[in-house]
Amino acid sequence: MTTRRTDLALEAHALLRAARGEGRINGLSLTERRLHGCAVTEVRVESEGASRALGKPRGAYLTLDLRTLPDDPAARTERAALALSEALRSLIGPPAKTALVVGLGNRAMTPDLLGPRAAEHIPATRHLKSEAAFSSLAAVSVLTPGVLGTTGLEAAEQVRGAVEAVRPDLVVAIDALASQRLERVCTTVQLSDAGIVPGSGVGNHRGALTRETLGVPVLAVGVPTVVDAATLALDLLDEAGASLPEPDALRGHERVMVTPRDIDARVEELSRIVGFGVGLALQRALSLDELRALID
Amino acid sequence: MTTRRTDLALEAHALLRAARGEGRINGLSLTERRLHGCAVTEVRVESEGASRALGKPRGAYLTLDLRTLPDDPAARTERAALALSEALRSLIGPPAKTALVVGLGNRAMTPDLLGPRAAEHIPATRHLKSEAAFSSLAAVSVLTPGVLGTTGLEAAEQVRGAVEAVRPDLVVAIDALASQRLERVCTTVQLSDAGIVPGSGVGNHRGALTRETLGVPVLAVGVPTVVDAATLALDLLDEAGASLPEPDALRGHERVMVTPRDIDARVEELSRIVGFGVGLALQRALSLDELRALID
Amino acid sequence: MTTRRTDLALEAHALLRAARGEGRINGLSLTERRLHGCAVTEVRVESEGASRALGKPRGAYLTLDLRTLPDDPAARTERAALALSEALRSLIGPPAKTALVVGLGNRAMTPDLLGPRAAEHIPATRHLKSEAAFSSLAAVSVLTPGVLGTTGLEAAEQVRGAVEAVRPDLVVAIDALASQRLERVCTTVQLSDAGIVPGSGVGNHRGALTRETLGVPVLAVGVPTVVDAATLALDLLDEAGASLPEPDALRGHERVMVTPRDIDARVEELSRIVGFGVGLALQRALSLDELRALID
Amino acid sequence: MTTRRTDLALEAHALLRAARGEGRINGLSLTERRLHGCAVTEVRVESEGASRALGKPRGAYLTLDLRTLPDDPAARTERAALALSEALRSLIGPPAKTALVVGLGNRAMTPDLLGPRAAEHIPATRHLKSEAAFSSLAAVSVLTPGVLGTTGLEAAEQVRGAVEAVRPDLVVAIDALASQRLERVCTTVQLSDAGIVPGSGVGNHRGALTRETLGVPVLAVGVPTVVDAATLALDLLDEAGASLPEPDALRGHERVMVTPRDIDARVEELSRIVGFGVGLALQRALSLDELRALID
Repeated sequence: MTTRRTDLALEAHALLRAARGEGRINGLSLTERRLHGCAVTEVRVESEGASRALGKPRGAYLTLDLRTLPDDPAARTERAALALSEALRSLIGPPAKTALVVGLGNRAMTPDLLGPRAAEHIPATRHLKSEAAFSSLAAVSVLTPGVLGTTGLEAAEQVRGAVEAVRPDLVVAIDALASQRLERVCTTVQLSDAGIVPGSGVGNHRGALTRETLGVPVLAVGVPTVVDAATLALDLLDEAGASLPEPDALRGHERVMVTPRDIDARVEELSRIVGFGVGLALQRALSLDELRALID
Repeated sequence: MTTRRTDLALEAHALLRAARGEGRINGLSLTERRLHGCAVTEVRVESEGASRALGKPRGAYLTLDLRTLPDDPAARTERAALALSEALRSLIGPPAKTALVVGLGNRAMTPDLLGPRAAEHIPATRHLKSEAAFSSLAAVSVLTPGVLGTTGLEAAEQVRGAVEAVRPDLVVAIDALASQRLERVCTTVQLSDAGIVPGSGVGNHRGALTRETLGVPVLAVGVPTVVDAATLALDLLDEAGASLPEPDALRGHERVMVTPRDIDARVEELSRIVGFGVGLALQRALSLDELRALID
Repeated sequence: MTTRRTDLALEAHALLRAARGEGRINGLSLTERRLHGCAVTEVRVESEGASRALGKPRGAYLTLDLRTLPDDPAARTERAALALSEALRSLIGPPAKTALVVGLGNRAMTPDLLGPRAAEHIPATRHLKSEAAFSSLAAVSVLTPGVLGTTGLEAAEQVRGAVEAVRPDLVVAIDALASQRLERVCTTVQLSDAGIVPGSGVGNHRGALTRETLGVPVLAVGVPTVVDAATLALDLLDEAGASLPEPDALRGHERVMVTPRDIDARVEELSRIVGFGVGLALQRALSLDELRALID
Repeated sequence: MTTRRTDLALEAHALLRAARGEGRINGLSLTERRLHGCAVTEVRVESEGASRALGKPRGAYLTLDLRTLPDDPAARTERAALALSEALRSLIGPPAKTALVVGLGNRAMTPDLLGPRAAEHIPATRHLKSEAAFSSLAAVSVLTPGVLGTTGLEAAEQVRGAVEAVRPDLVVAIDALASQRLERVCTTVQLSDAGIVPGSGVGNHRGALTRETLGVPVLAVGVPTVVDAATLALDLLDEAGASLPEPDALRGHERVMVTPRDIDARVEELSRIVGFGVGLALQRALSLDELRALID
């Protein structure tokens, strides 16, 4: 039964586990740890079989659960940014001298605003490198390519052009995602070294952003901001101990995506967390305060 | 079973009907008509018993179903505004010389933005009355009181102050609502002569805006822009022919409100429809084009 | 020669001084001091004659010159807010238990956005007073009445309604001003206990907000954000040592107001300074960090 | 005396004429006509000598004076868009099958918002070409590259990438300009076939967008939205019949740029005019109504 839509490897893993029972699945592992007090779950997809079974490309998928952090907004933002930064660095490996950050999504749709807004919180430094005061920084460029409907250009086309111009060591692509469970919407961040593939995310980008298409490693940072209505109903049902008479009964509602009514405030908070976290991961010499001073 | 939350009299009527069976309910009537091609359903609550059974104050509730209008955006907006204007006039009765329009809601939350944004499409004319060119217009004032959390003032307190200052013949209050069914979100407009009572709407205003509290007739114009997650699940279930093992199984999720992910664009369209419709209802001498010329 | 337009008592004083020469003017005094490192000039208008000569109501006018503060944005904002807070407290006298803040101006015009935007940085607390945690706070309400052209309501009418509802000990009215000199635009804050009178400010409010009209003390906080084009030309001339062939030669250009091209960023910074400063002046028990925590 | 800053060839021509007297200047011509009721002045720079004398690259510069159009906003917008469209077509020559529109400027600074905002009013059609209904349209892409300070990428780098991807027949670059005279701010549109060169415009782009750098014709559409303070003073002086004691007296103020205080509303109106005009020039099969229907 595949009516449940999710972009989170963690949720796909749980669905697969539920369908297959307890046995080990070859090439698939799940481990848990804490970073700065934040619960982080890592799903590794290491074989072609596991990739097919899960419906996700091979790679590492780290999921941060922000519900495990304190409620106080300022402390929460800082701790989440530090955790994200450390998790992202573990995927990046040795520091990059030059990076291109891409904020994907549609500015005209609040739940899809996460990528462009997070990008606003990441200081571009490439043009400052000639100044002595900034010579120790990584050279970061920040692109927000907009959406095909208003530009006529695929995001992937614009990213390829920018990669050509700046020749970065790596690309970090930020995007809004769909999750299976309402409780994970705006409370979860997924990091991956598998890039971004067509059909995922809120906005259904057609062109892939991966090491294969761009020639450099592509780290993906995603935040679920929507859930589809039918998936939501199925999950509330499960919790309540009920079940559907037939698996495809909700098929017609599958593509209606919903989002919490306070999505504006949540996207703002998450944009700061993601922006600061990515910025810190790329600028290893800077504290959070120094990073923020570069933006204002 | 009252776990299904709705601000629409039409939906409350259907739920009551489903619970009570086919027999006539005293003091409650439902009639249907078409205005400018738009289906309009009128629920009349005429007895105290009917009011209690329905959970709505006595009065007339007109529901416009915008799904019965053409898809072309320009034609749709115009037809919907004309239908809304005619329906609202039927509740107002003889033309008002002086009116106060109130756009309720929180500008910082997209689904609650309907009231303030609609108010932007209604020309204020009270200060123009001394100019000869505008002497035949109704004197309209437009108030957007904001929300208690950022002002420290109840909307009702500000409306009372404005009523004191302008002494209007009537008040029109515009607000976002919660509906039971996702399909009615952003496709329906409810007009009523019963005012606005505490606890309804997206934003839970504490003070009532009614003829009793303000001393003049209060017309309410509401658009459902959210649905609560549990109600949504129950309705998808019903459609699929399933049912819950026990009535209260979803109680915990009751207050999580969701909204379509493209709520930004929908609220924009509906704000124009509601603004133009209310403007036309108040300015009977003006065409839609003349009304719009007063705003730009 | 009165072609030079200014809302700043400090500038009016200098123009009067230039016209009259060095002699003492009865009932008019000017003193200087430093608050938190910020230069503050106080002009006192204490006689009817001085009031007429200056064209300003009797009262105290304190001008903060933000150019005397450090360049670092965070330090500058904090120091300016502290200086503003202390200067405002000196005008208020004993702490107010209940206050109404009014953010005047037009949201659709950037240089006039100062009042509404500053209001967003002042926490409304009146509705929190029943909670024990907030019982020591002053009860603050925050009103942003909009402009006559879009509401049909005078700001003064709305303020009277709010004064009626909350019965404050005092009113603080925030507004954008016009200055004579471009260099004072967005670098100066004027505080006064003389209220706000018709015809001043960027937006030309018709109704006065004074102790006479509202029945409680009215403190005015103003920031010059525009300068009129002819006044600007005259001042650049003076500096260059040139002079006009005839005094009224620029009369036709008198009412074209101009503003710096980076007015957006400057209004944002000043809104924070004014909002925090007013908030601190009203909430004497709170530090700047505690105040900000109430807003986010 | 070259302290007067202007991006308008028309103003540079008048300054040169004033300095040189009445004699003919080789390779420089000025002609006037009317398009849809709008006065259009064409300056042609046809020799290297004329180019040096004027400080502008060789090419044609058409200036539309919108003050010659009716005051009624709707009629004015339509007439201006039609005039702009016809003037631009005269520079383009035979219809382009594929075009790239570039909206230059900083979204965070109102007077520099003209380019990005105008771009929002131009329908992207490149991705629609495979649909039969749109097969007769020109394939238009729309890029808004942002500014170096927030992206780390030169606009020219991004444009080159997009030119690589879409291989357009021509590029249309829209930008905000500085004019010498306040009365031309937001009342004038300059079209040119000479592209955009470093140092012009409000935002001082470093990389040129010209046929030489991009390999395809580059049409520039510019609207003056700022004037520098010293130039403004000099011009008001001239009008008043006064003159400065020494030419460089105002040098220190040279780089303070000012803009009208109602710049928000003016940029909105001009963005629609420029967007519709460029859209019509590129889509010769469409009426203005059909063009607008593609955007909403």
